[in-house]
Amino acid sequence: MLERFFSPRSVAVIGASRKPKSLGHVLLKNIIDGGFGGDIFPINPRAESILGLKAYPSISEVRGHVDLAIVMVPSSIVLDITRQCGEKGVKGVVIISAGFSEIGNAKLERELAEEADRWGIRVIGPNCAGIIDTNSNLFATIESRIGRGNIAFVTQSGALGGAVLAWAANEGIGFSKFISYGNACDVDESDLLSYLSADKDTKVITLYIEGVRDGTKFMRVARDVSPKKPIIAIKGGLSKAGAGAVHSHTGAMAGNSRIYLSVFRQVGIIHASGIEDMFDMAKALVYQRRTPGHNVVVLTNSGGPAVMAVDELESLGLSLPEPSGEIRERLDFLPPFYSVNNPIDLTAQGDPEMYARVFRSLLSDGYYDAGIVICVPPLSLDAAEVAEAIVEVSKDIDKPIVACWMAGRLVERAVRILEENKIPNYPTPRRAAKALSVLMEKESMNPQPGSP
Amino acid sequence: MLERFFSPRSVAVIGASRKPKSLGHVLLKNIIDGGFGGDIFPINPRAESILGLKAYPSISEVRGHVDLAIVMVPSSIVLDITRQCGEKGVKGVVIISAGFSEIGNAKLERELAEEADRWGIRVIGPNCAGIIDTNSNLFATIESRIGRGNIAFVTQSGALGGAVLAWAANEGIGFSKFISYGNACDVDESDLLSYLSADKDTKVITLYIEGVRDGTKFMRVARDVSPKKPIIAIKGGLSKAGAGAVHSHTGAMAGNSRIYLSVFRQVGIIHASGIEDMFDMAKALVYQRRTPGHNVVVLTNSGGPAVMAVDELESLGLSLPEPSGEIRERLDFLPPFYSVNNPIDLTAQGDPEMYARVFRSLLSDGYYDAGIVICVPPLSLDAAEVAEAIVEVSKDIDKPIVACWMAGRLVERAVRILEENKIPNYPTPRRAAKALSVLMEKESMNPQPGSP
Repeated sequence: MLERFFSPRSVAVIGASRKPKSLGHVLLKNIIDGGFGGDIFPINPRAESILGLKAYPSISEVRGHVDLAIVMVPSSIVLDITRQCGEKGVKGVVIISAGFSEIGNAKLERELAEEADRWGIRVIGPNCAGIIDTNSNLFATIESRIGRGNIAFVTQSGALGGAVLAWAANEGIGFSKFISYGNACDVDESDLLSYLSADKDTKVITLYIEGVRDGTKFMRVARDVSPKKPIIAIKGGLSKAGAGAVHSHTGAMAGNSRIYLSVFRQVGIIHASGIEDMFDMAKALVYQRRTPGHNVVVLTNSGGPAVMAVDELESLGLSLPEPSGEIRERLDFLPPFYSVNNPIDLTAQGDPEMYARVFRSLLSDGYYDAGIVICVPPLSLDAAEVAEAIVEVSKDIDKPIVACWMAGRLVERAVRILEENKIPNYPTPRRAAKALSVLMEKESMNPQPGSP
Repeated sequence: MLERFFSPRSVAVIGASRKPKSLGHVLLKNIIDGGFGGDIFPINPRAESILGLKAYPSISEVRGHVDLAIVMVPSSIVLDITRQCGEKGVKGVVIISAGFSEIGNAKLERELAEEADRWGIRVIGPNCAGIIDTNSNLFATIESRIGRGNIAFVTQSGALGGAVLAWAANEGIGFSKFISYGNACDVDESDLLSYLSADKDTKVITLYIEGVRDGTKFMRVARDVSPKKPIIAIKGGLSKAGAGAVHSHTGAMAGNSRIYLSVFRQVGIIHASGIEDMFDMAKALVYQRRTPGHNVVVLTNSGGPAVMAVDELESLGLSLPEPSGEIRERLDFLPPFYSVNNPIDLTAQGDPEMYARVFRSLLSDGYYDAGIVICVPPLSLDAAEVAEAIVEVSKDIDKPIVACWMAGRLVERAVRILEENKIPNYPTPRRAAKALSVLMEKESMNPQPGSP
């Protein structure tokens, strides 16, 4: 069980440092500033106190129980530190220190795993960037802190993890957990999938992997987890050159790219082609429910963006049937020059009331399975009012809905209104279409939208 | 010649309105606030003055010459207005008014074209969002104003144009010209390509088209222009449903998607799959020169992002050869645990000096044709200092270079330094790789990177 890593009552920071900007300092500062509620024990033989906390020369000097140790010391003493943790009764250790199999030092890594096993210790790392649990305000990482949300992000590459967290903060994306698992000498991606499938704070699991050591285990776990919780994964090293780079990066064997993508499909993992793609889909899956179906309607006030959405939807295997006779009847309040097609274009005349009335008419029976709303506000239109109108309609409709309010700063308030009400918004029609496709359950049976 | 549209000394705004938020008001206000240096004549029979300018009941009442008329009146009187413009000697008219072939009124549009032709008037529109020339501060548009730059954006869809301008302002993208040409009753996309090929402010032409009326002319012009100036195009309506939507949007026939993409290749147009893609490539082409070659090196301080860049580069047909023996010799100052591969990973130890020295060693002879620099700054590293170091090296290297400083706000200053020095930066490794590929001239001969 990995609970020990995410709800500890006490944390030791082994290698905490007084030197500003050093990793041992950043790590301790993150934990303190993040607001962790339990005890924090800095361990450093050459300091009396660090950042206002009493420091201990070794973990054995700490009085009271230590649930979790975060280790940021030279690789040469990691084995010894692990033994000390074992003697102290610590059961979870996160090893941030590098200098193991990723630089060819596989023997040391094996010894580390054996030492940990001897004491019943579970290890995350080595060569990782640490872990975050936003629910318990545990920011045991050298990377930047993040906002709370329902996406868990698990990454084999620590630095990529850090970059993604910083990028996501800008995009307003929140996380339940961040786990950089590095060389995976013990806890691996499969263990983490298993654990996260039962984590109540996590609705969607996102994953950056370069290689998987135990393919059979990974397939078994993913197949078990994916029907309960969506798993979205980027596979680094799909190309020949990329596979070589992976090998020199984490020492992992990248494996054949066709095999990976085919395994993803078989076990229900959604493949993402890149970072934006992954979090676009994750946002959709956090806000909305997947439902069966493939018939999509596009409502817009601007022809061009709707055309681009439709092109993307069709390329993803979704259908855009013309409105049924019944829907046409419901829409007969529209002025005669409106062509009631799909996409249906309200033109610059579209006001909040018309948006709401048409959107409700389109989605109020079983004909369409999902809808995209596009709004490119002319200066005469308040984009936020259209957002409010669509939010009202969405409350009565149990179908996937995604939005594309386009125009940068001019629609910032509208986007906030949409997303606070669980309608994911995307800055371009293609991204909206791609995100919608992941909500249509047909997709999980067929080639994944993200597949090349 | 289309000069008349972009360097007028006097502009009449026919249909200027005193009513705030009305299009006739927004249009006039844009022209005034934009800082247009010539005479501005609001035309409105029911106003004495608008926004502090004397208004005229009709264009014939204006004393002095009028170079350009922007028309925003009901479609029913556009013919009459055109005749009045003819009598006044106006030679360029931009018709923003809708209500022509896009709603089935093809006859009125034909009559408009004939009336204009009778007077030697060139027409942009109808059913368009207007034009912008940032060099002469002419913002004759109902859309938001934009910053100066070297990208011309030509769009068949006016509302898409507006959304793109607003989005681009957020992204810091600047334009030379914006031309929304709407139904193209006279001036069409080919005329605009021709004109822009000789425009000194324009380095890259971007294009959103749904249909082309005269395919032979388009091919001839594009084939002529593309070797002189890159043309990047999005084709709306590539799917079956999209083609239907195009037809009801602008009345254009979308044509067969395979034919379009094949024509693009033949005439040297770079196909963009979406808005971000188009401007990612445009930025690269504005800042950097295309050069022949296909051997790329990736320098990074983080393995994961480099793997993702490499995967994308290989999928785009570029090569990532290992460093030559000579380069290895030049790099022997690196500590022994660095593996000198491609990508070459400086790890968290990479400082500005090391970045600069390694980057120079990699690109200082003819072995590599281009380079990507990735920087995911650990907290101990000043991302801006690395940017400055790379900028210094770039001054001595005449090869395409693109950057990927990842981490949102943490790298804002670094990104500004890079881009002020003509090194385009992208927020993800895939986008950096895609943008680099458009700078490698091999690409213009082979299937376009943006093609499906």
